[in-house]
Amino acid sequence: MNLKDKIAEYPNFPKKGILFRDFSPVLKDPSSLSQIADEFVKHFHPKNVDVFAGIESRGFLLATILALRYNKGIVMVRKAGKLPGKTAKLSYTIEYGKDTIEIQKDILEKGQRVIICDDLLATGGTAKAAGKLIEKVGGEITGFAFIIELTELNGIKGLSKYNCKSLVKY
Amino acid sequence: MNLKDKIAEYPNFPKKGILFRDFSPVLKDPSSLSQIADEFVKHFHPKNVDVFAGIESRGFLLATILALRYNKGIVMVRKAGKLPGKTAKLSYTIEYGKDTIEIQKDILEKGQRVIICDDLLATGGTAKAAGKLIEKVGGEITGFAFIIELTELNGIKGLSKYNCKSLVKY
Repeated sequence: MNLKDKIAEYPNFPKKGILFRDFSPVLKDPSSLSQIADEFVKHFHPKNVDVFAGIESRGFLLATILALRYNKGIVMVRKAGKLPGKTAKLSYTIEYGKDTIEIQKDILEKGQRVIICDDLLATGGTAKAAGKLIEKVGGEITGFAFIIELTELNGIKGLSKYNCKSLVKY
Repeated sequence: MNLKDKIAEYPNFPKKGILFRDFSPVLKDPSSLSQIADEFVKHFHPKNVDVFAGIESRGFLLATILALRYNKGIVMVRKAGKLPGKTAKLSYTIEYGKDTIEIQKDILEKGQRVIICDDLLATGGTAKAAGKLIEKVGGEITGFAFIIELTELNGIKGLSKYNCKSLVKY
């Protein structure tokens, strides 16, 4: 089955001029969930990864799908202010203003190999920041996993030194 | 293994007087992830559920863990403004002010049986609202699944007509 056929399109959401790609129908379908894991296993060998990092909040879904298939753990990259204990933060520019993401400082052992997961690669700002943050706390990046990639926004450019895999490209 | 041993405690987070229970170490441990699924399978029979609803954002993690084990789908209950298409919304009171959650109107078929998932049951305001919302869009509630329950806040009271299961109680 083609995952693309299960992605719905909503013009002018969240604002005029944006075509929103919605993977809700993919999530609702158990065989699609299993297909997602199958596709990534072909790309990232289980020997090369120790943990999956999910970017809040839809990245938590993909990180969990993959962690369970690979039999590895999950770590959360969250919006600022939500994680207890000692944390590392990183701010990055978005369209209007800036955003900050955060991770627990001691959640990774030094050199643990991480695949960073998000549902969608658009401009890549959040993904790139998540990469820097994981490296800042001692992780090594095996790669980036996305369900959808909006190629016209060229987010992949900022991740060019990493191994990136997205399942559905527009 | 006792899941409780893997839950970290942080006094005075997110504010003074609150003891934050952090399940990050549970997520990081593959055998704990698998134990979580084992425990819920003992409680909710796979024949009685069609889909797992995750409450944004940490509920997405548990919903995915369970959906994969039960071989069912996932639906998202999100904070307002994030879901495209026709949606149903519900506002509920929180400590200071109110919060709104949202679901896609057509994401469930009428009568589909849903287990609503969140990481933590505290006062139960969000969970109760999620239950009403699922019913509003035609779902039937099989039950509620939580990893942690703070029993002193008595959130279970507002969910008394439902089948609720939490793995670690304080």
